[in-house]
Amino acid sequence: MRYASALRLPQYAVMKTLPTLLTMAHPGDLSELDARIRNGAIRAEQIVAVIGKTEGNGGVNDFTRGYFTQSLMHLLSTHLRESPAELAARIPCILSGGTEGVLSPHYVVFCRCDDDDDATSEGGALAIGLAFSVATATGDIGRASHAHQVAAAVRAAMRDAGIDHADDVHFVQVKTPCITVARAEEARAQGMAPVSGDPNRAMAYARAAGALGVALALGEVDGAALTDDALLADMSLYSERASISSGVEISCNEVIVLGNSPHWTGHYRIAHKPMADALDIGAVAAALADLGLDAAPQLDASALGRIAGVFVKCEPQRQGRVRGARHTMLDDTDINAQRHIRGAVGGMVAAVIGDGRIFVSGGAEHQGPDGGGLIAVIASGPRP
Amino acid sequence: MRYASALRLPQYAVMKTLPTLLTMAHPGDLSELDARIRNGAIRAEQIVAVIGKTEGNGGVNDFTRGYFTQSLMHLLSTHLRESPAELAARIPCILSGGTEGVLSPHYVVFCRCDDDDDATSEGGALAIGLAFSVATATGDIGRASHAHQVAAAVRAAMRDAGIDHADDVHFVQVKTPCITVARAEEARAQGMAPVSGDPNRAMAYARAAGALGVALALGEVDGAALTDDALLADMSLYSERASISSGVEISCNEVIVLGNSPHWTGHYRIAHKPMADALDIGAVAAALADLGLDAAPQLDASALGRIAGVFVKCEPQRQGRVRGARHTMLDDTDINAQRHIRGAVGGMVAAVIGDGRIFVSGGAEHQGPDGGGLIAVIASGPRP
Amino acid sequence: MRYASALRLPQYAVMKTLPTLLTMAHPGDLSELDARIRNGAIRAEQIVAVIGKTEGNGGVNDFTRGYFTQSLMHLLSTHLRESPAELAARIPCILSGGTEGVLSPHYVVFCRCDDDDDATSEGGALAIGLAFSVATATGDIGRASHAHQVAAAVRAAMRDAGIDHADDVHFVQVKTPCITVARAEEARAQGMAPVSGDPNRAMAYARAAGALGVALALGEVDGAALTDDALLADMSLYSERASISSGVEISCNEVIVLGNSPHWTGHYRIAHKPMADALDIGAVAAALADLGLDAAPQLDASALGRIAGVFVKCEPQRQGRVRGARHTMLDDTDINAQRHIRGAVGGMVAAVIGDGRIFVSGGAEHQGPDGGGLIAVIASGPRP
Amino acid sequence: MRYASALRLPQYAVMKTLPTLLTMAHPGDLSELDARIRNGAIRAEQIVAVIGKTEGNGGVNDFTRGYFTQSLMHLLSTHLRESPAELAARIPCILSGGTEGVLSPHYVVFCRCDDDDDATSEGGALAIGLAFSVATATGDIGRASHAHQVAAAVRAAMRDAGIDHADDVHFVQVKTPCITVARAEEARAQGMAPVSGDPNRAMAYARAAGALGVALALGEVDGAALTDDALLADMSLYSERASISSGVEISCNEVIVLGNSPHWTGHYRIAHKPMADALDIGAVAAALADLGLDAAPQLDASALGRIAGVFVKCEPQRQGRVRGARHTMLDDTDINAQRHIRGAVGGMVAAVIGDGRIFVSGGAEHQGPDGGGLIAVIASGPRP
Repeated sequence: MRYASALRLPQYAVMKTLPTLLTMAHPGDLSELDARIRNGAIRAEQIVAVIGKTEGNGGVNDFTRGYFTQSLMHLLSTHLRESPAELAARIPCILSGGTEGVLSPHYVVFCRCDDDDDATSEGGALAIGLAFSVATATGDIGRASHAHQVAAAVRAAMRDAGIDHADDVHFVQVKTPCITVARAEEARAQGMAPVSGDPNRAMAYARAAGALGVALALGEVDGAALTDDALLADMSLYSERASISSGVEISCNEVIVLGNSPHWTGHYRIAHKPMADALDIGAVAAALADLGLDAAPQLDASALGRIAGVFVKCEPQRQGRVRGARHTMLDDTDINAQRHIRGAVGGMVAAVIGDGRIFVSGGAEHQGPDGGGLIAVIASGPRP
Repeated sequence: MRYASALRLPQYAVMKTLPTLLTMAHPGDLSELDARIRNGAIRAEQIVAVIGKTEGNGGVNDFTRGYFTQSLMHLLSTHLRESPAELAARIPCILSGGTEGVLSPHYVVFCRCDDDDDATSEGGALAIGLAFSVATATGDIGRASHAHQVAAAVRAAMRDAGIDHADDVHFVQVKTPCITVARAEEARAQGMAPVSGDPNRAMAYARAAGALGVALALGEVDGAALTDDALLADMSLYSERASISSGVEISCNEVIVLGNSPHWTGHYRIAHKPMADALDIGAVAAALADLGLDAAPQLDASALGRIAGVFVKCEPQRQGRVRGARHTMLDDTDINAQRHIRGAVGGMVAAVIGDGRIFVSGGAEHQGPDGGGLIAVIASGPRP
Repeated sequence: MRYASALRLPQYAVMKTLPTLLTMAHPGDLSELDARIRNGAIRAEQIVAVIGKTEGNGGVNDFTRGYFTQSLMHLLSTHLRESPAELAARIPCILSGGTEGVLSPHYVVFCRCDDDDDATSEGGALAIGLAFSVATATGDIGRASHAHQVAAAVRAAMRDAGIDHADDVHFVQVKTPCITVARAEEARAQGMAPVSGDPNRAMAYARAAGALGVALALGEVDGAALTDDALLADMSLYSERASISSGVEISCNEVIVLGNSPHWTGHYRIAHKPMADALDIGAVAAALADLGLDAAPQLDASALGRIAGVFVKCEPQRQGRVRGARHTMLDDTDINAQRHIRGAVGGMVAAVIGDGRIFVSGGAEHQGPDGGGLIAVIASGPRP
Repeated sequence: MRYASALRLPQYAVMKTLPTLLTMAHPGDLSELDARIRNGAIRAEQIVAVIGKTEGNGGVNDFTRGYFTQSLMHLLSTHLRESPAELAARIPCILSGGTEGVLSPHYVVFCRCDDDDDATSEGGALAIGLAFSVATATGDIGRASHAHQVAAAVRAAMRDAGIDHADDVHFVQVKTPCITVARAEEARAQGMAPVSGDPNRAMAYARAAGALGVALALGEVDGAALTDDALLADMSLYSERASISSGVEISCNEVIVLGNSPHWTGHYRIAHKPMADALDIGAVAAALADLGLDAAPQLDASALGRIAGVFVKCEPQRQGRVRGARHTMLDDTDINAQRHIRGAVGGMVAAVIGDGRIFVSGGAEHQGPDGGGLIAVIASGPRP
C-alpha cells in the first residue's frame, strides 16, 4: 500500500484543514484559485485535494471534468516545481459533471495548513486524510476483493487524518478504476474474467465495490456479508458516508477521508446524514442541525456564511416510484436519469441551504439507502 | 363576451367545488377517472375543468397534452351525450408537459356539485368560475388590448364563481391563443401587424398579455401602466396569481378562476404566495401555513392527506444567476431551460409537500416576481 | 394459430395491393386519410395494415405512436361498424418514432383491393399477407421457442399473401410482445424464468427472436443454429428482410409479409438489399436498380413519382467504429444512439431518393448485417 | 489592418500547403499530432492553422472546443519557444462541435512548407493565406461595416495566399467576434447600439456579416446591396465559399483563405459547390468530379485515399420543409436543430465519401443558398 501521505502530504505540528469554496465562469476557468494563490490566501503547496462540480452532462462524454483537471494542474504547475502529470498523480481532483437546475459550477479546495491561531472546536476539528491503494487487477474490479482493497485504503486514510474512531468519519470520497473494453480484453487474455463485459455495468460494480469497501472500513457492514454476490444485489448493505466515482484515467483507488478529529485545530467541522429518498428534506435539516445550523425552512445569511461545502449523493428510485407516486426519470429517452435526479435533489438541498453551490452526484449504489442517498456538510463554528 | 357559465355550467342552490387528484400510467390512461365515474364518486356531468401534468417535454413537440386531451374527451363522450369536440369546447383541459425529476404525472378534476352535507369553512370555501372570451384578433394577440380582453374574462369568471373581492382570488389559470405562421400571414394580408414574426416570441407575448390581464382584473397593476411597451419589458408588473399557457388550438381566451367564497360550501380552501426566486422555500411554507398546514420541514401524513392540488409557476432567472451564483440553464443546448427549472423547483416543492404530484409550469413571464414565480395550494380543512 | 386472414381480411378473385403514402401535420392528424376515404380513393374496409413514422423520440416514453394509433382507430371507427378496440385488434399499425434530421412524419396505408384494371407486372405484383400468432408465454419471449413461433406465423402470412417461394418475400414487419416488469413477476410466480429482468434487454431479445424467426421461415438461417444462446450473441445470423418492433401493448406476434406474387395484379413491386454498414449507399442504389430506378446520384422527378414506400432498419455499430473511424453515438449521454443513427442513415437514404418520407427504424439486432441493416423499396412500374 | 502573414507566417521561395487529417480519441487527445511532430512528418513551426470537429454538442455550453484548443496550444508550446497564449494568438484553431451520427472527431493541420520536390498540379496547387483584422467595435458587429472589415481581411488573406483571382478561392473560414452581454453594456455606455440585445441573435448577425464580407471580397454580392437591412433578411445574398463561426474569445476577425494558385506547388487541390438543400447529393458528387473523383455512388478505396479534407456548411430549412415535406428539426425541444441537420447532412456526405471524418458545421446564414449550404473538398492528385 502506497500512502500519499507518506510521500508529499504536508505534515505540521499543529494541523488544520482549510476548505475554500470557489466558483468558475467555465470549466477552464481557475482564475479565482489563481488570485487566491497570488494574494497569499491559499498556499499552493498546501493543496491536498479538490472536489467540485462542472457543467457538463455528467455522462461518458462529459469532457468538462478533464478540461477542468487539465486547467487546474497547469495552473498549479506554474506555482510549484512539478509537472502537471506529477501533480495529477498526487492531488486527487474529483469532479461530478452536471449542474442541472439551480446547481452552480464550483469547487472546494482542501488545504492542509499549520495552524496560525489557537482556534479549536469542541469535539475536534475538520480533518482530512488521503490514501492511494495499489493498482486493482482488472479481474478484481467490482468484486468483493476490490472492496477489501478499498477498505484498507480507507483505514490508511483515517490514520493519515488522525481519526481513531469510525464514528468520527463523515464523508469518504473514493475514485476507483473501472473496466474499459481494452482492459477487459487484456484481462481475458490473462485468464481473468471481468465482472461484466458492459462498461457501464462494470462501472456500477466498481462503484458498488468502492461503497462497500468504505462501509466495511467504517463498520457499517460485516465482512461476512460482503460477498461477490452482494454487489448491486443486496441493497440493504450500504455506507452512509461513501461517495464513489469511477474513472478510466486511474488504475488505483484514491481515497479522501473527511471527519472530525481532536488532533486537528480550526473552526471547521463536518456532519452527515443518510437520505431515505429523494424527498428526504428532513435529512438535510438534521445534518445542518448537527452543526448548530437551523434551517427554518432556510438558513439565514449568517448561517449561510458558515457553510464551506455541501456534498450529496442520490439515485433515481429503481422501481419507478417516489413514495408511491410514479416518476418518469428511468423511461426518459431524452434526459438521462442521473441528470433528472441531480436537478431535483439539488433543487431541494439548495433551497434549504439558500445557495446553488452544492455538490450533487448520482450513481449512488450502496451509498445511502436504496433510492435515496446521503448528505454531508462542512461548516465553520459560529462567529464569537 | 360569451361566458361558459351562461351555457352549460351546472348551477345549484348550494354549490361546492370538488377537486379530485388522479394519477395516470401514461398520457392516454384515464382509467382512474373512468373508475370514479363508474362507481359514482365523480359525476361526469359535473366536471367543469381539468388541470394536469403529463410526461412530455413541455415544448412545441410535446404531444402528450393532445393525447391526454383526446383520451379525456373520448372517455367523457362515452358517459355524456356530447361529442368529443363539443366537450373540448366547454371543458377547459389545461396541461403542462414535463415531469422532470421527482414530479409525477397527474391531473386534478374540478367538479361543481350541489352540496350534500352541511360543511362550511370559515371565511368561505373553494369556488371555481369559468369564462371564455370572444376570439382575439391576431393583430391584438400579445398586446395591451389582449390583456384588457383577458381582464374582462377574469372579471366574468369571478362573477361566475361568486367571488366579490379580488383578494379572495388565489389562482387564475388562463389559456390564450397564440400566433402561428399561418395566422401571422393572414393578419398581414388584412393589414394587421403581428406582435412578432417569431412564433416562440409571439407566444411569450401572449402569455405576458394573459398575465397582465389577470393582474389588471385583480388590481395588481394599474391600467395606465399596462401599455404595449410594458409587455416582456417592465418586469416589475406582475400578477401573484396568474398561471398562463398559450396554445395554437384555441382562438379565444379560456379562464379558470379559483378562490374562496362565502357563497360556496365544502371542506376545501385555497391559498397562494409569490416566489421571489427558485430557492424561495419560505413561500412554499407560507402558502401552506395560510391553510393551517405546518411543514417543519415537511408535511406529516395527516397534513399531506388534506392536500388536493399544488400549482406552481417558475422561470430560469434571465441574467443567469440565482442569488448571485451562476446557473447554467439558459446556456444548455441539450436540456431546455424550462425543463431544468421545473425539475429544480419541483424538487423543492415536492420535498416540502412530501409528494411528487405537483403542477409545475414554466414560462412565467409577469407571473410572480421576475426570476421567481408563484405557488397556490388547495387543501381540505382538518378532520374534526 | 389464428390467422388474421381467416377472420376478416378482404378476399377477391383478383387481388391487388394498394399502398398509399400520406403525411401528417402532427401525430393526431389523420386528415389526409379521412379525405381519401371521403372522396373514394381509399375504401376503409379494404385497409389491412399501416406502417408509419411519427415525430416522437422513438424511445420508451414516445407517446406519439399511441396517439397516432388511437386517432387512426377512432377515425376508422367513424367509417366502419367496428369499435376502435376491434379495429386495433385486426389492423396492425406499426409505427417507428423519431423523424431526426430530414426525415418527415408519414404513413403508408396498405389496402387489399379487387383489381379494377388489367395491369400486371412481369414477375408478379406486390402482395401483402398477414398472420397473428397465439400469445407468447412470458417464459418463451426472447428465446428460440419464440423465434419458432414467429417463423410459423411468417409462413402463414406467406400463404395468406399467396407467395410460394421465400425468395419472393422482400420485407417482413413483425411486432412482438415484450416483457414488462409485471409480466416478469407473473412469470416467475408460475415458475418461468424471463430471459432478462432488464426490460430494455428483454426487448432486444424479443426483437432478436422475431428477426431470427423471420430468417428461419425464409431459409436464411438453419434451424439447428437457432439456439437460445445464439440470440444477441451470434450476429452472423440474420435476416435481410426482417423489421422487428416490440411493444407492451400486445401479447401475440403480428406479422406483415410483403413480396411479389404472380397471383396478384397491379403496378407495384417491392425489392430489398442488406446494408453492410451505415455508409452503404451502394445498397440503396442497388435496391432501386432492382426496380428499374436509377439514382445517379438521386432519383429524378419521374422516378421519384413511382416510389410508394421506403423502409430501412439500422444500428449504431457496437464497437464504436464505422469503417475504422470512431463514432460517438454510443457514448452520448444527451442524444440516444438510435436517434443518432436514424438521423444519419435517414440523411443518406433520403438524399438518394430525393424525399424525407422514409421509414427508418433502429433496434436492428439480427436484421441485416451487424452494424448495418437493410432497405426495402416499393415502387410502381414505369408509366407507359 | 494587421496581417498574420506579416508577422510570423513561414515564407519560402517555393511554397506548398500540406494538409494532414488526424483523429482524436477525445477532445484532449493530441497524440497523433505529437507523434507526427516527433517523427518529423510535421514540423511544428510550419503549422499555420487547424480546422476540426470535436464531439461536444456544438452549442453555447460545448467546452470540447476550448479543451482541444488548450491541449493543442500546450502541446505546440512544448515543441516551440512560445507560450500557449502566444500560439493561440497567431494560429487560428477553428472547431465545430458536434459529431452527430456517423461523423467522427478529427482535425486537419495545415502546414506551409518549402517544397522539397518538383510536384506541380496543372491549374495550380492548394494555397493557404491568413489575415487578422483589427478589433471590430461592438457597435459595428453584425452590421454592414463589419462585413466590409471582413472583406478587407479576405482580400489580405488572398494576397497572403498568392491568389490573384476570386474564382481561385474555394473556401474561406472566418471566425468573427460576437456580442456578449458585457460587451453590449459597455457599448451602450459609449453611446453605441448593439445590433441585438439577444446574444444568440447577435451571434447570427455576426456570422451574417462574416459571410457577406466574404461574398463581397469574392465578388459574389455587390457592395450596394450590402446594407445593414440585408443581413439575416435578404437571403438571396450569399457566398458559396464562406464558412463562418463566431466566438466570444476573440475581438478581431480571423480569416483563412483556401484556394488554388499557380504560385504554389504540391499535389493538393481544392474544389467547392453550393448545396441547394439538405438533400443536394448532386453537389457532393459535383465537387468531387471537379477534382477528378468519381462517386458512383461512393468513392472507391483509391479515390478515398486522395481525400485530405471535406468541409460542409448546412442549415435546417427555416419554413420547416425540405422539398415540400415537413421536417421537425426546428420544433424539437430535446435535440437542437443544428445537431439534427449536422447528423443528416453528415450522413449523406459521409456516405458519398465513404468516411465519417467530415467537417460539418451549422449556422450557415448567407453561406450557400438559404436552407442549403456548401461543400468544399481538398484532395491530392491521382497517383501516377
